[in-house]
Amino acid sequence: MIQKLITAIKKTNAPIVVGLDPKLSMIPQRIINSSIEKYGKTNEAVADAFFEFNKEIVDGVCDLVPAVKPQIAMYEQYGIPGLCAFQKTVSYCKEKGLIVIGDVKRGDIGSTSESYAVAHLGQNDVFGEITNAFDEDFATVNPYLGSDGVKPFIDVCNKNDKGIFVLVKTSNPSSGEFQDKIVDGKPLYELVGDMVSKWGEMSMDGEYSNIGAVVGATYPKMGEALRKIMPKTYILVPGYGAQGGSGKDLKCFFNEDGLGAIINSSRGIIAAWQKEEYKKCGESVADAARCAVIDMQKDIEDALNG
Amino acid sequence: MIQKLITAIKKTNAPIVVGLDPKLSMIPQRIINSSIEKYGKTNEAVADAFFEFNKEIVDGVCDLVPAVKPQIAMYEQYGIPGLCAFQKTVSYCKEKGLIVIGDVKRGDIGSTSESYAVAHLGQNDVFGEITNAFDEDFATVNPYLGSDGVKPFIDVCNKNDKGIFVLVKTSNPSSGEFQDKIVDGKPLYELVGDMVSKWGEMSMDGEYSNIGAVVGATYPKMGEALRKIMPKTYILVPGYGAQGGSGKDLKCFFNEDGLGAIINSSRGIIAAWQKEEYKKCGESVADAARCAVIDMQKDIEDALNG
Repeated sequence: MIQKLITAIKKTNAPIVVGLDPKLSMIPQRIINSSIEKYGKTNEAVADAFFEFNKEIVDGVCDLVPAVKPQIAMYEQYGIPGLCAFQKTVSYCKEKGLIVIGDVKRGDIGSTSESYAVAHLGQNDVFGEITNAFDEDFATVNPYLGSDGVKPFIDVCNKNDKGIFVLVKTSNPSSGEFQDKIVDGKPLYELVGDMVSKWGEMSMDGEYSNIGAVVGATYPKMGEALRKIMPKTYILVPGYGAQGGSGKDLKCFFNEDGLGAIINSSRGIIAAWQKEEYKKCGESVADAARCAVIDMQKDIEDALNG
Repeated sequence: MIQKLITAIKKTNAPIVVGLDPKLSMIPQRIINSSIEKYGKTNEAVADAFFEFNKEIVDGVCDLVPAVKPQIAMYEQYGIPGLCAFQKTVSYCKEKGLIVIGDVKRGDIGSTSESYAVAHLGQNDVFGEITNAFDEDFATVNPYLGSDGVKPFIDVCNKNDKGIFVLVKTSNPSSGEFQDKIVDGKPLYELVGDMVSKWGEMSMDGEYSNIGAVVGATYPKMGEALRKIMPKTYILVPGYGAQGGSGKDLKCFFNEDGLGAIINSSRGIIAAWQKEEYKKCGESVADAARCAVIDMQKDIEDALNG
């Protein structure tokens, strides 16, 4: 699967993933009104609005970027209808040729992780019929439970040509509370990085592994160290834009081949239509998202060439 | 919320939570046949079978135990129908007067954790109407992202009188890979325990906190240390029975007041009907589950008095 992502990154010349993390406050009133008209003031209406909004974003950017990353929490909070919108979003993005990273941050003891892996990347045999659940291409995974919480995901990746990104150093302000603690002379996130590298050997796909890592743009120095520890690991980089990471911070996440990292932006792209600076791009959600992606692509390119 | 749990534990004299983690292989053929007849060989049929099976278990044990803990991964792997069965199970258990611990192990950066907290313990304002999603009483939370990944859950606990159990030392074999690493002279799980204790101060409910901890029965010595570090923290103890923890290992998880811990058993109760030793209790899923709970209750009582 990582080779599919690399091919798509090369084709678009954009190591960018668009975070499809809708909030009601980001959605134009015309969409909201139409959804309320159909479903009343219900979770179903929110779900409908989320999906319609996502479709406009996706239609606007699908030729410019390789991948999207819906954050399932945004949908889960609206219950079953919300999760239906998540599922429809995953399917729609795949129809449009995009690679879908399910940002689900699952992880549990072995037998339970196996179920989560099947839920997001695998298939079930239901009385002889094959069924699947959410069927993303990649999922994000929490490593706190250690190898036997991660290996079931690796097995499913190998079986179905899928990938995962394991949390190593997260982008949030308090990520250091545990992740930065010094263990055996180095920070815990480096130890987790070592393990990701080792797990990665179990699912190589060309020069990179299907087992990637999450490292926040907000911690570029740590990113630099982790880049060296995990040379064959693709790094998914959240935290660019709204969370404070900037273009110049990104270079250290890439390898010398110009590959090895993909940068996420959510609010910066999907809520671009609400910003004064993107009014110039046109009136629509899609046009503003498109402009924001082009700006981001340039920002990254400048950083890589700088 | 922790006082509600304590009241229910005292009433039943059983610090037991029944893990509602169904697998197809545990479900009687009569239920499977009926579900396939209704829904064909589909995820809907699995979901129907899960719910019918859970109902029989719950009907069998609801007067004997204070709480249940459905593991969402078991349901999530069957997609939307599976999650509908999870939701119906939560509602049914609450109707039967049981406290429901959603074993969801969620956790993310602050704004995303807030959405997860709403999904499982909170409510949304949808255009002026209040909606909820899964509405469990407690949820399990992964601490790897630090305070700002946990605090949104605490806020929702305080707002809606709910609780959480934060993973401290998990029951699985590889939990030590990261959790046991020595940090500042003590294992990481103790550091997490210190934090849980600190977070707990933000949501006290009588002598205990709504912010609990997960510590595996498979690590009783660590449990003993953690019991001292977190005196006001309720400990949810998985790993009893099928995972290898035994009655004699449990005493150390309790405080001298006889409170402070609740022990989970999943397979040992819900799959008891498949075991030779429970054939004596009757033919039904419910009867065997009931016998298994009574045995477990005695095992714990002996351990506490021993």
